[in-house]
Amino acid sequence: MEELFNKVLQVNVRCRDCEERKANIRVTIELQLTTSPVHKRDLLVRITDDIDPYFLFNLAISEEDFQSLKVQQGLLIDFASFPQKFIDLLNLCISEQTSDSPRFLLHLSCQSPVLEGPANFSVIETNAFKHLNHLSLRLSQASDKEVKDYLAVCLSSLKAEKHALEMKLKTTEDDLTRQLNYAQQTLSEKTKELDKLRSEWTTQTSSLSSLHSQELQLEREKALE
Amino acid sequence: MEELFNKVLQVNVRCRDCEERKANIRVTIELQLTTSPVHKRDLLVRITDDIDPYFLFNLAISEEDFQSLKVQQGLLIDFASFPQKFIDLLNLCISEQTSDSPRFLLHLSCQSPVLEGPANFSVIETNAFKHLNHLSLRLSQASDKEVKDYLAVCLSSLKAEKHALEMKLKTTEDDLTRQLNYAQQTLSEKTKELDKLRSEWTTQTSSLSSLHSQELQLEREKALE
Repeated sequence: MEELFNKVLQVNVRCRDCEERKANIRVTIELQLTTSPVHKRDLLVRITDDIDPYFLFNLAISEEDFQSLKVQQGLLIDFASFPQKFIDLLNLCISEQTSDSPRFLLHLSCQSPVLEGPANFSVIETNAFKHLNHLSLRLSQASDKEVKDYLAVCLSSLKAEKHALEMKLKTTEDDLTRQLNYAQQTLSEKTKELDKLRSEWTTQTSSLSSLHSQELQLEREKALE
Repeated sequence: MEELFNKVLQVNVRCRDCEERKANIRVTIELQLTTSPVHKRDLLVRITDDIDPYFLFNLAISEEDFQSLKVQQGLLIDFASFPQKFIDLLNLCISEQTSDSPRFLLHLSCQSPVLEGPANFSVIETNAFKHLNHLSLRLSQASDKEVKDYLAVCLSSLKAEKHALEMKLKTTEDDLTRQLNYAQQTLSEKTKELDKLRSEWTTQTSSLSSLHSQELQLEREKALE
């Protein structure tokens, strides 16, 4: 299983009799290699919603499936070049996302009033003249079992992320506390040193002064003799 | 929905033709109140495994179900007292868990070679004479949809925990960094102050000494006149 693409994209979602709405949809493209019983490659397209755990539509495209997709949609490329071409189209949509009138848009539409059943996922270019359909894939809504498997994977990776975060919290806390303790200890030593120096200074100055007065006194007495 | 119990307990698991093994199973007991269309109370018993996301067995006991359970197992209590009595038994098992020969044990057994299909969840007391069955509940293995719903809840609470952890990491980092910066800045000021004091001391001592020599010299010159 090789992950080729995994990004959140803005998608225009349209169901029957509903107003079009924008949604942030995660698109994942994976290449699955099977060697047994026969050697085959499948392209897996999955769309999910990071907010809604039940949102899962997918499509597996085998080399044979691709041949009919190619004929049906008039594609000029072969199966091997298809994933990268699809990814290029998705990246085009991303680059246009912030534009006021994006030229490339992703559409997800289904026939039912709510988003369920099969849905069409399309890359549409809009120019002054018309909407051009670059690619349209028919995704199936995942079964309970597929959603279950998907959620189990999400849960496992989230657990790993949480564990890593716990480790990081511990390391950060230990590291900074150690540095803080060291700094505070050094500060306390410096403060003591400063106090000691101040008191030594006072003592030495007064002893110097008293030595001075004694010597001066001695000179004066000598002069009087 | 009121959660009455939620703890991980040691359970002896036995499938057909397999050796008995110990597992750590989370037991959750919830009381579900429904007011519409009719007012009814259901006791929900759920066992899950924190390691295995697919492990989910459950049982809903309505007041009617309880009547047959009562007859079947010769229970002397009513539906209202049942949850607490069950929890007391589970707590007894927990308190015996660390013992070498625990008197109260939990058993989960199923008829199939792997843990699937309906399973019996029992609280067994073992004395010198025999095994006494205190309670035996027949749990169903959850459907894909139930596991899906359970995993979605797990995912959502794990996300919340992860978010809380991220907040804590940020707060800890900010807090300790602030303290560290303050300590280091104070340390740097103290060090400067110390250096300044040392150099002032040298200057003052030498100026005192030179003043002293001058005054002494003056006295000597006066004495010679």
